[in-house]
Amino acid sequence: MAVTTTMDLNADLAEGFGRWTLTDDAALLDVVTSANVACGFHAGDAPTMRRVCDLAVERGVSIGAHVAYRDLAGFGRRSMDVPAGDLAAEVAYQIGALNVFARAAGARVAYVKPHGALYNRAAWDVEQAVAVVEGVGLAGGGGPLPVLGQPGSALLVAAERAGHESVPEGFTDRGYRADGTLVPRSEAGALLTDEKMIVARTVALATGQPVPAADGTPVRVDARSLCVHGDSPGAVDRAVRLREALEADGVALRAFA
Amino acid sequence: MAVTTTMDLNADLAEGFGRWTLTDDAALLDVVTSANVACGFHAGDAPTMRRVCDLAVERGVSIGAHVAYRDLAGFGRRSMDVPAGDLAAEVAYQIGALNVFARAAGARVAYVKPHGALYNRAAWDVEQAVAVVEGVGLAGGGGPLPVLGQPGSALLVAAERAGHESVPEGFTDRGYRADGTLVPRSEAGALLTDEKMIVARTVALATGQPVPAADGTPVRVDARSLCVHGDSPGAVDRAVRLREALEADGVALRAFA
Amino acid sequence: MAVTTTMDLNADLAEGFGRWTLTDDAALLDVVTSANVACGFHAGDAPTMRRVCDLAVERGVSIGAHVAYRDLAGFGRRSMDVPAGDLAAEVAYQIGALNVFARAAGARVAYVKPHGALYNRAAWDVEQAVAVVEGVGLAGGGGPLPVLGQPGSALLVAAERAGHESVPEGFTDRGYRADGTLVPRSEAGALLTDEKMIVARTVALATGQPVPAADGTPVRVDARSLCVHGDSPGAVDRAVRLREALEADGVALRAFA
Amino acid sequence: MAVTTTMDLNADLAEGFGRWTLTDDAALLDVVTSANVACGFHAGDAPTMRRVCDLAVERGVSIGAHVAYRDLAGFGRRSMDVPAGDLAAEVAYQIGALNVFARAAGARVAYVKPHGALYNRAAWDVEQAVAVVEGVGLAGGGGPLPVLGQPGSALLVAAERAGHESVPEGFTDRGYRADGTLVPRSEAGALLTDEKMIVARTVALATGQPVPAADGTPVRVDARSLCVHGDSPGAVDRAVRLREALEADGVALRAFA
Repeated sequence: MAVTTTMDLNADLAEGFGRWTLTDDAALLDVVTSANVACGFHAGDAPTMRRVCDLAVERGVSIGAHVAYRDLAGFGRRSMDVPAGDLAAEVAYQIGALNVFARAAGARVAYVKPHGALYNRAAWDVEQAVAVVEGVGLAGGGGPLPVLGQPGSALLVAAERAGHESVPEGFTDRGYRADGTLVPRSEAGALLTDEKMIVARTVALATGQPVPAADGTPVRVDARSLCVHGDSPGAVDRAVRLREALEADGVALRAFA
Repeated sequence: MAVTTTMDLNADLAEGFGRWTLTDDAALLDVVTSANVACGFHAGDAPTMRRVCDLAVERGVSIGAHVAYRDLAGFGRRSMDVPAGDLAAEVAYQIGALNVFARAAGARVAYVKPHGALYNRAAWDVEQAVAVVEGVGLAGGGGPLPVLGQPGSALLVAAERAGHESVPEGFTDRGYRADGTLVPRSEAGALLTDEKMIVARTVALATGQPVPAADGTPVRVDARSLCVHGDSPGAVDRAVRLREALEADGVALRAFA
Repeated sequence: MAVTTTMDLNADLAEGFGRWTLTDDAALLDVVTSANVACGFHAGDAPTMRRVCDLAVERGVSIGAHVAYRDLAGFGRRSMDVPAGDLAAEVAYQIGALNVFARAAGARVAYVKPHGALYNRAAWDVEQAVAVVEGVGLAGGGGPLPVLGQPGSALLVAAERAGHESVPEGFTDRGYRADGTLVPRSEAGALLTDEKMIVARTVALATGQPVPAADGTPVRVDARSLCVHGDSPGAVDRAVRLREALEADGVALRAFA
Repeated sequence: MAVTTTMDLNADLAEGFGRWTLTDDAALLDVVTSANVACGFHAGDAPTMRRVCDLAVERGVSIGAHVAYRDLAGFGRRSMDVPAGDLAAEVAYQIGALNVFARAAGARVAYVKPHGALYNRAAWDVEQAVAVVEGVGLAGGGGPLPVLGQPGSALLVAAERAGHESVPEGFTDRGYRADGTLVPRSEAGALLTDEKMIVARTVALATGQPVPAADGTPVRVDARSLCVHGDSPGAVDRAVRLREALEADGVALRAFA
């Protein structure tokens, strides 16, 4: 194999809160190259954010702000009609809070990715997408921050217009439709469970090969980062396998930011 | 009058939350020289923090982080046994969140003052005082941040030991005991209500004159900043009167930070 | 005057939280016949709920549960995609919590009215409307509880289907469209501000007369209760004037429940 | 063996919140006879409370309200200076919310046990103990509710004075001092880890035999219920072993309430 491409692996981390834990942060930080760190609104208490930032910097993992709706009870998974001005301020608030721990560890927040319902909504709701980007701009003291999102999303469009780098990501275990969008979670085929298929898809996404959409059509997904899920049993093992498969295929894992 | 002393006036601002308001932030920012801005834990939603920072910078008012226990229901007025590591991280989180709005407005967080029960507890509880200061240190990316507190408090001692500037403050409407400590709120004489006496006390504190303690003993209070209360009806009018009295007495109002 | 109709006046109460107050509960309880009491999700801490229930029972005012999305920061005014099962349980939770204070005061929760964004959404979103009614059913230990809402709303339809009494309400200061629905708040004419017009509308609604819609068309609004707003300056004075106008016109004020 | 004593086994359940889980509620409900159900202040969202009540009633397990400080971030484990009136109302609020689900399942809240820091503080702080009991009284529409706590605690004294049944409990895996109080968690010997010793202690507590205190002194612990911990790995297996040991020793497991 002479492929010398590089790819970023990102995962959602720090998803505990107080007494509760969800993600095996230490183990995942050994695998991924970018950590989407919860900032306290859907998960992520301050001590956890601090610890994850310390570990990420030790391992050379890039720190991203995983900003969310203020909704601990719903884990940020419920779409909310937050007015644009409030949303912009809340996004900035979360980035600023996380940045303290990133800086204390010797790094800084390197990018922003919305979480859960905000991620999905900012993919099509232009007002919320622009508000998220306004929040990113408010927080980006030292210059524009890259924004991670779905290819073609309103979020990435808004980010580019505002002068931020837009970084499209692919999903290793989600079904795609022929137009390159994700199969909604409410439909069959939304989530891949066959481990072989997930590995094949991951390698294809990383090397720019088309992947089969739900209806079989080959579809090319523009991705500079691949998202692996961290909150299910077996998540760490799968992430390790994906990383090994990528490296075996000549893909060098490297943070985009 | 040939007195050419300067003094700082600080007040607690941004003490609303969502639909609720408490302090007349715009009016008070015309009077004070330092704004203790709530950071979301006892009050202070993100949009309010942003607006107050914008107004403060417009008027040349110094921005301080008014860090608190996580206790919206109790407005941060209930002492809590928060473990030191958690408290340090929560203090840093709040400062970082506020700093985003201070920087977006063209300034930065210039000092830290604990709020309510945390202020009172960090006056004597060495573990919590040290934890607050640890949080200030975590957040102080650009160098040590001044800490505002009661003269002689465990908080100021801890701040100095950690290399932060410690800034003692006086209270314009609180009773003092002969040893220079405050009369506890549970005792008679804790709160002055006579406006003439409050003005006289304020001028005395600002010019280094002794003030009469509750038992009549003259007591000198070391103060580089004076706190005026902003959350009662008539608070703005009183703050204006105090400022005028100070200026009439030749005291120049100037932020300490 | 020989009109012998009766009408209920309801207002939203207990809308403070901790240190913050919004509604003048004691004064409004002298005017209205039904109190929509916040239950802690958008406002309404437990001590406030208790006090308002005590006052309501003293004055013979009927107690309703003003159930809301879990959203203190947004005061329950932001529509949220809460899954039906979760929403039903959260509605029941709130009713149960309030019922403790109603019973301790010698009464019980007499009806349920959704607040803010949940009120608006349950007017058209059948799934959420049914979920609210399921929650009412879960909580109605002693039999079906009346549900207060907009005439023709999905909420009232769902309530009736589930065997609950449905109680349509009119708004004293809101504009109506020719089809009997409210002018949305985003449009001109949503909120009446002319005091004379508000009084005239109130009397017309109470006596079954048509009211002029925004386009002038006379429209009949089926209302067994009239809502007066309590969270604006002058709210108490206006409520008193409306009550006096109704009584002068021979309308007896009486709780529907 | 001709011992025909009965004993109650209680465990803390419903300790998840939203996306987070902690206790294996279904499995523990097969073992215990009383379920201390979290009520939303330290853990226990409404859907979880509902599900646990349904399961408890199916299995004939008694439902208790596990009331706590309002402190999700600290899991109710941080002592808080809550004013007595507020605490009483918050306790009543929690009991009322839980009672809705107990009643919907065909039962009702059968007792109250404070959680975590409130449990520990109400053991010695008479003001908070009395406030908790006041809250229990407010909520006890149908008559006085039993209160579960440490033998000799201020809580049980206050409960008895107010006419509630007081139910002392023993701990199967905690060290005792010679005076019958628990070894504080900050000291060595606070937590037993030897499984044989835990079984022996459990049987002794259930059958009224003395147990060895930390210093070896035999001490008799007055207990009408035994607490098994549910939030550690292996908790279910241990609970099953304790139940089997008790039954093998002729102790019939039966709810006290």
